Amino acid sequence: MKVENLNDLFLHTLQDIYFAEKQIVKALPKMISKTDSPELAKTLENHLAETENQVGRLEQVFEMLGEKAKATKCPAIEGIIKEAEELIADIKDPDTRDAGMIAAAQAVEHYEITRYGTLISWAELLGMKDAAKILGETLKEEYGADQKLTKLAESRLNKEAAE
Amino acid sequence: MKVENLNDLFLHTLQDIYFAEKQIVKALPKMISKTDSPELAKTLENHLAETENQVGRLEQVFEMLGEKAKATKCPAIEGIIKEAEELIADIKDPDTRDAGMIAAAQAVEHYEITRYGTLISWAELLGMKDAAKILGETLKEEYGADQKLTKLAESRLNKEAAE
Repeated sequence: MKVENLNDLFLHTLQDIYFAEKQIVKALPKMISKTDSPELAKTLENHLAETENQVGRLEQVFEMLGEKAKATKCPAIEGIIKEAEELIADIKDPDTRDAGMIAAAQAVEHYEITRYGTLISWAELLGMKDAAKILGETLKEEYGADQKLTKLAESRLNKEAAE
Repeated sequence: MKVENLNDLFLHTLQDIYFAEKQIVKALPKMISKTDSPELAKTLENHLAETENQVGRLEQVFEMLGEKAKATKCPAIEGIIKEAEELIADIKDPDTRDAGMIAAAQAVEHYEITRYGTLISWAELLGMKDAAKILGETLKEEYGADQKLTKLAESRLNKEAAE
């Protein structure tokens, strides 16, 4: 699509994060299958359910714009997920692998945090208050997921990996 | 390198962000050349100087570990920068391009924020207080750069793009 103004850029970025969320829905079950930690598995499973819901929220925003939900290839999330999968495949020690997995999941969260932050700011400028509100719900969840992963890392998993 | 424990994972991630910082040093001047906004150019130029300094800090941490500074290919930053360059090249309208450039620069900042956050947490677990302190200085700068970009976006550039 041609990006000629902020409306176009908003739509383009919406398509970018729509692609990203769908890639994350595919990547999370693979990550979950590679951990022996019930706590980490549960945290990632909860976030998978949230992510599926976030895909639905994006579809709502597309509808508000009168646009069909469409994904645009997003090299950023592809790179982040590729790096995560390569790292996790390379680590044999379970505790070290979990520490790497948490770091990888947090890199994913931060990508989402930056994109939703931008989309909300643009939605407000463009007078799309309802869209900003819906995207704000997702942003809150992404911050929450990031914080849960930090807590998990600090409380248990990283300590085991350092032993 | 083989990643067998948290020490290895710390070193691997240090090599990853060392690669990323060097790519950012190459990417920023290209971005700066594509904006007509003196404010945005200045913000990115200041951050380029900070980034060069951050490369030096990473070299200090490698030295503390008794390791040679080495970069490991980081698909995540490659994807983030590729996406930024493609987007910026596609936008003809200067204000819209600046809005996209700010968003792209913030995606880079968030990648760094997550990686430095992880490295600091691991350095503390591994008893490397001096390394944690040095990395903490960089993390503070990354948060600062992100906030400056947010302010710039909200105060002027995005409003012009929305007009």
